Amino acid sequence: MLGEIVTIGDELCRGEIVDTNSSWLAEKLWDLDITVAWMTSCRDLQADIGRALKEAIGRADLVLVSGGLGPTEDDLTVDVVAALAGVGTAEDAEARAHMEARYRAANFRLTPNNLEQVLVPEGARVLGNPVGLAPAFEVAIGGVPVVCMPGIPRELHAIFERSLRDRIVELREARGEKVERIARRIFRVFGKSESHIAAALTGVIDGVKGASLHYQVKFPETLVKVVVRDRDEAQAAARLAEVDGKIRAALGPRLYGVDGDSLPAALGRRLRDAGWTLATAESCTGGLIGALVTRVPGSSAYYVGGAVTYTNGEKVRQLGVSGEALDRDGAVSEACVRQMAAGIRQRTGAGIGVAVSGIAGPDGGTPDKPVGTVWLAVDGPGDRSRTKRFTWPGARDQVRELAAHWALALVMRQLDEGKDDA
Amino acid sequence: MLGEIVTIGDELCRGEIVDTNSSWLAEKLWDLDITVAWMTSCRDLQADIGRALKEAIGRADLVLVSGGLGPTEDDLTVDVVAALAGVGTAEDAEARAHMEARYRAANFRLTPNNLEQVLVPEGARVLGNPVGLAPAFEVAIGGVPVVCMPGIPRELHAIFERSLRDRIVELREARGEKVERIARRIFRVFGKSESHIAAALTGVIDGVKGASLHYQVKFPETLVKVVVRDRDEAQAAARLAEVDGKIRAALGPRLYGVDGDSLPAALGRRLRDAGWTLATAESCTGGLIGALVTRVPGSSAYYVGGAVTYTNGEKVRQLGVSGEALDRDGAVSEACVRQMAAGIRQRTGAGIGVAVSGIAGPDGGTPDKPVGTVWLAVDGPGDRSRTKRFTWPGARDQVRELAAHWALALVMRQLDEGKDDA
Repeated sequence: MLGEIVTIGDELCRGEIVDTNSSWLAEKLWDLDITVAWMTSCRDLQADIGRALKEAIGRADLVLVSGGLGPTEDDLTVDVVAALAGVGTAEDAEARAHMEARYRAANFRLTPNNLEQVLVPEGARVLGNPVGLAPAFEVAIGGVPVVCMPGIPRELHAIFERSLRDRIVELREARGEKVERIARRIFRVFGKSESHIAAALTGVIDGVKGASLHYQVKFPETLVKVVVRDRDEAQAAARLAEVDGKIRAALGPRLYGVDGDSLPAALGRRLRDAGWTLATAESCTGGLIGALVTRVPGSSAYYVGGAVTYTNGEKVRQLGVSGEALDRDGAVSEACVRQMAAGIRQRTGAGIGVAVSGIAGPDGGTPDKPVGTVWLAVDGPGDRSRTKRFTWPGARDQVRELAAHWALALVMRQLDEGKDDA
Repeated sequence: MLGEIVTIGDELCRGEIVDTNSSWLAEKLWDLDITVAWMTSCRDLQADIGRALKEAIGRADLVLVSGGLGPTEDDLTVDVVAALAGVGTAEDAEARAHMEARYRAANFRLTPNNLEQVLVPEGARVLGNPVGLAPAFEVAIGGVPVVCMPGIPRELHAIFERSLRDRIVELREARGEKVERIARRIFRVFGKSESHIAAALTGVIDGVKGASLHYQVKFPETLVKVVVRDRDEAQAAARLAEVDGKIRAALGPRLYGVDGDSLPAALGRRLRDAGWTLATAESCTGGLIGALVTRVPGSSAYYVGGAVTYTNGEKVRQLGVSGEALDRDGAVSEACVRQMAAGIRQRTGAGIGVAVSGIAGPDGGTPDKPVGTVWLAVDGPGDRSRTKRFTWPGARDQVRELAAHWALALVMRQLDEGKDDA
């Protein structure tokens, strides 16, 4: 089954916004075993929308369209689709009632052009819109189902999750192609390159029927996507479970989580479970580690706070770094980060202190300590401590992102080590 | 002149990566007065690439292609383009010499498939590649120039800036259409909604020949793009200068910068110019303000550091917030942020202290202080101080981003006020 995606909008063709709907939908279709062969963007022109749809219908078994459903005069999708299907347009009663209720609640007056938004081609199968006003709908043109959705990503996602996914499965089964059920898992890895991961996973899905493995670099981490397809859902799940164990064993502790997890969230769970609190001492990252840690709702349960010590003076005042260490080794040194981590831990009373000091660039490098040199230290829990030096190529932002993520990873490693000791 | 963009790659059609090349190129073409009518993505299949190129050539006056230039067997662009142009392929001597030099320097061995990367269609105009190995090239097919580039964004950007932009101007002039020269400026605004900005700018380009105005919301800021087109470059520049003054007057101090500027960089210049240093005291933003300030290279000239005080205990210990204020008003209160800002300023000796405390959510709200409530305070320079309360709708990340950016904006406003006083 071949799918095709058409996104409509002048703002796309002027480069004002990046089209994220196409890739989002393509990934979802891929999971449903539908191959996306073409993705096309065109302007808000009747003739071009018509041409794009006709091309797509001529090539594909399913066409998903985003954009051009709205209250303004450049929203033409409904008219074009209705004309291609040879029908008129009509208000969708449910969408209108929904709109009236929303406007009443907000004390807004409904104007005639608002009502443009609840028009659909006559006879369309209306898929609704759980989070917006313009309803998604499906029309068959030349026997090919064409599904139209608003271009706002949040609405498009909600429509897909709420009803479109099931509808696509239904369409596929109606074609006599039973959809293969998919069991999938995304394994999230930080601190190991794509090629090292691939080497570690060599052969891991050999002999597992219907299994495939895909890599995706999402700086600063790498995702490994495992998909198992089978007509039988339980079979697919069972084989995924089998592969899952092998992958976890092969990746070891660099695998920090699966699916929608994040490194800060994973660290948060570990800290919570172990009953430790964390404090941060940052120089070149300027607060980025704290900002990452506190992205997680509920992080106040384990994050105390920290110091951003951008000057040597603040390193001394806030963290008790010795003038001797600064004079002898400089601010970007093992001695300095060690004292920073110990200092923040001791002063805040946190169970663990983590510190970073480095040269993010573009200036400030020396032959000994080139731009991209970063020292990290973890102090605690207990008498455990570790330091690590990196020299990263790359721009200022990348060096800072890597340093902040490595700070979290090193804290996790320190917690792991404790587990091994026990 | 109509342009068209074709991006090639299985990874695009599987939704593994978002196609940012299309929008990037579309914006550049728009600036060159070339309308992008279609953007198409297809898979690494000979037949599909051929079809995509033929469609594009049939519709457009210029076709830009990204992807499918590489050393692996799914890199087919050169072959398909050569076949469409009715020519063979040949090594580009310059690209080969460049590759050999790079491999020698890195002590790598050149393999035959590496050399695939330096093949171009015979007779192609080679545009090179300043930062990578596969050279960009241009071939005319059916009289339409087709420019092929590697899909790696960094390489594509470099090729455009180094040679492609000039080449497109040349192509356009060869058509007898003199390219209208463009004078453009992006005005960057923080702290004013798109509709308020639009209201403030009503009529601002009226009567200015060739001028147009475009809005783009780039959370958390809004960009106003002004373009003036004219055959004569000096004319366009003069008219932009005329509009520039009106726009600055209409937007006032909410306009923080132009073109590639950023709020942290603008604040940095202001602090440098005024000779003040800054320190931060953060609660709900967890370090985000410091991270923003230190994104700017050279920020150590004016940023001292700060405290991340996620617990009440740390607010007392690091900033001297009074237990009385915390007990009476809570951590999210005017009294608390006022003391936080004054505390960090006094303890670090910075000229200005800025502080934030709020409820980023999703939990922790009360009827009095719902999720999204944020207090901000600025202390200094001198005896000036200000506080401000916001209640933002939106998710945790958005509330934190807004809070961090508003912290910078309020410091700028405080500096502005000093200027007015003087």
